[in-house]
Amino acid sequence: MTAPRSWIEDPAFAADRPFGPQTLPCGVVETASGQAVAVRVGDHALPLRPLADEFTLELAELVSADSLDPLLAAGRTAWSALRARVRELVTATAAPDSAELLPLADTRTRLPFTVGDYVDFYSSRHHAENVGRIFRPNGEALLPNWTHLPVGYHGRSGTVVVSGTEVVRPHGQRAGEHGPVFGPTTRLDIEAEVGFVCGGPVARRVPTSAAAEHIFGVALVNDWSARDIQAWEYAPLGPHLGKSFATSLGAWITPLEAFAAARVPVPDPGHPRLDYLVEDQPWGLDITLTVTWNGTVVTRPEFAGMAYSCAQQLAHMTVNGATVRPGDLFASGTVSGQEKRQRGSFLELSWGGKEPITLDDGAQRTFLEDGDTVVITATAPGPDGSVIGLSEVAGTVVAAV
Amino acid sequence: MTAPRSWIEDPAFAADRPFGPQTLPCGVVETASGQAVAVRVGDHALPLRPLADEFTLELAELVSADSLDPLLAAGRTAWSALRARVRELVTATAAPDSAELLPLADTRTRLPFTVGDYVDFYSSRHHAENVGRIFRPNGEALLPNWTHLPVGYHGRSGTVVVSGTEVVRPHGQRAGEHGPVFGPTTRLDIEAEVGFVCGGPVARRVPTSAAAEHIFGVALVNDWSARDIQAWEYAPLGPHLGKSFATSLGAWITPLEAFAAARVPVPDPGHPRLDYLVEDQPWGLDITLTVTWNGTVVTRPEFAGMAYSCAQQLAHMTVNGATVRPGDLFASGTVSGQEKRQRGSFLELSWGGKEPITLDDGAQRTFLEDGDTVVITATAPGPDGSVIGLSEVAGTVVAAV
Repeated sequence: MTAPRSWIEDPAFAADRPFGPQTLPCGVVETASGQAVAVRVGDHALPLRPLADEFTLELAELVSADSLDPLLAAGRTAWSALRARVRELVTATAAPDSAELLPLADTRTRLPFTVGDYVDFYSSRHHAENVGRIFRPNGEALLPNWTHLPVGYHGRSGTVVVSGTEVVRPHGQRAGEHGPVFGPTTRLDIEAEVGFVCGGPVARRVPTSAAAEHIFGVALVNDWSARDIQAWEYAPLGPHLGKSFATSLGAWITPLEAFAAARVPVPDPGHPRLDYLVEDQPWGLDITLTVTWNGTVVTRPEFAGMAYSCAQQLAHMTVNGATVRPGDLFASGTVSGQEKRQRGSFLELSWGGKEPITLDDGAQRTFLEDGDTVVITATAPGPDGSVIGLSEVAGTVVAAV
Repeated sequence: MTAPRSWIEDPAFAADRPFGPQTLPCGVVETASGQAVAVRVGDHALPLRPLADEFTLELAELVSADSLDPLLAAGRTAWSALRARVRELVTATAAPDSAELLPLADTRTRLPFTVGDYVDFYSSRHHAENVGRIFRPNGEALLPNWTHLPVGYHGRSGTVVVSGTEVVRPHGQRAGEHGPVFGPTTRLDIEAEVGFVCGGPVARRVPTSAAAEHIFGVALVNDWSARDIQAWEYAPLGPHLGKSFATSLGAWITPLEAFAAARVPVPDPGHPRLDYLVEDQPWGLDITLTVTWNGTVVTRPEFAGMAYSCAQQLAHMTVNGATVRPGDLFASGTVSGQEKRQRGSFLELSWGGKEPITLDDGAQRTFLEDGDTVVITATAPGPDGSVIGLSEVAGTVVAAV
């Protein structure tokens, strides 16, 4: 028996496509009447404000906002109710009154929420080992704390930008032969990451078992990095200007609920975990990322092997009494797998710039050149053999100012 | 000739006192009709909303808000106009209609603005050298980048709290003999710092010459630090949970304009500076901090010797194209002078816990115990021989949860 056909006649909205009715990511789009909360259906955006009458009063208020901020604050019960109702609406055979579908290609997306704190972790063992070997060739690849806690740091929330925003090559200091040199970075890189968007009540000491109460959804992140600036500045307090110029976030947040079939255990660290990092259910996610550089697929990092899950990262981040607020964003750190073509940064792919990457047009690259475009996409297993999509995070490098 | 007497009959509002009419810090207080923008006059708060009719329409809107957010966004011209008008009002011989003075002792202050990004620098050479010697006894005290750039990192803006907020002793991982141990920190410390509150238009690449367009004012900061958690976690990405549990901010922001007589050049780094860090006018500030521990003055750090000024820190922070927004906060890093009794952290005062400090009641301390109270105050030279005050940042440690 074939399911009755939805009123949304977009082949990309089929159940066997990444942005079918099993996914339904949320975002914010520009419409003729201003910014509006929307869901992605295939290759279209469906603004929800015109459909407010189709929702309960509480949900109507959330979908009528001009950002996801009220929805993020509303918490898990509202998130689930909204998702269920949206699914009914988009899988119905008849369009709701006043529904308007906007082709994504013609639609401007906005940063969908106000970013509170942005924490970036470092949870791929292969990435940490690769970077350790490249930056500290004479030291241990992995520092002693790494297998015991998800190492992370705060990034700049004010420069989180939505996918599609141009990335201006940053200036900064880098080490030179006779002291530091100032100028545009010569080693502009990406970090392919998975980000988690927080919501629900302000909370402290969130146990791993409560992750779903505080994580609204998942989006791809490109944590652009100027490696020469970073290498010179980072000791002893960590990355700063090498990262703070821009962090790109996918425009559409895929709800955490969509990943029910993608959950996998995180690898065993090889020693007992401290209690607060133990999970009673697996929160690793079987996501495969694809990174294209000027149209050439250069790497396919596997998220499933990450050493710490989002639940462990959130538990760690708040175990000291720090609050998590709606709009806080945390990211996994660069996703790198064991194989070369699973590395999530060009630093690693080119092994510190020594092994150029050949693109399909024959161009050789180590780090990013002006005009280069990087697009990261991802998929994960969905229910009943379907596939869940994570919307692209794309950016083009423009010349230094 | 004696100046005519102000209608504010508070001896602490005299011109020779730190919170006289030359200072006029801005904050937010609880009033019977909700949160209100206020100025500090001596030991009183003067809420401004009841006085809105005394201001131009533009300023009336800013002073009628329930936080400093609109004022911060309004920019330098509005800041100066507001300060001039408030000064007229508070130095008049007759009280404006509907003025209400609230004694500070009975008034609850609130975090006065929404903190955007919070960056903490590391700009005291003595502090950096002391910490280097304590944490890396076999290495160079100062890392090579330190004299070339203001080293800094992002802290957690969601846990910036107003002076007076209790500080709960944080849990976390620390190094143990047989791997990490989890529990309440055993080395809870302070960092006495000077913070800068940003405002004006969103900007990138702010030259040192434009600092006053983007810095609204100055407030004391206590960057509480769990040294054992920090020491275990910080390599290679810098401090995280050792700091993110709480950062206390003075409730009253002293406008930058008040420091005209306190400006001093920063010390020469011993080598030419990169152009973007050169100042065309001095932005060092001759501020003296006083730290009391359970009522005993334990140290008096001198801010004048800091290696980087607020203008240099802001120029550095934005030189890579990162934006500065209204509400962004950056702090100097621990203020430590050359002398022992000028060190701005207990880590340094007790030299890593080896040299206890004796308080007036005979108690010996290395790090903070539950129930301990730390109060940081500061003054700077004001116009005509007067003194400018920075409002206290106070906090009491309570037992771990």
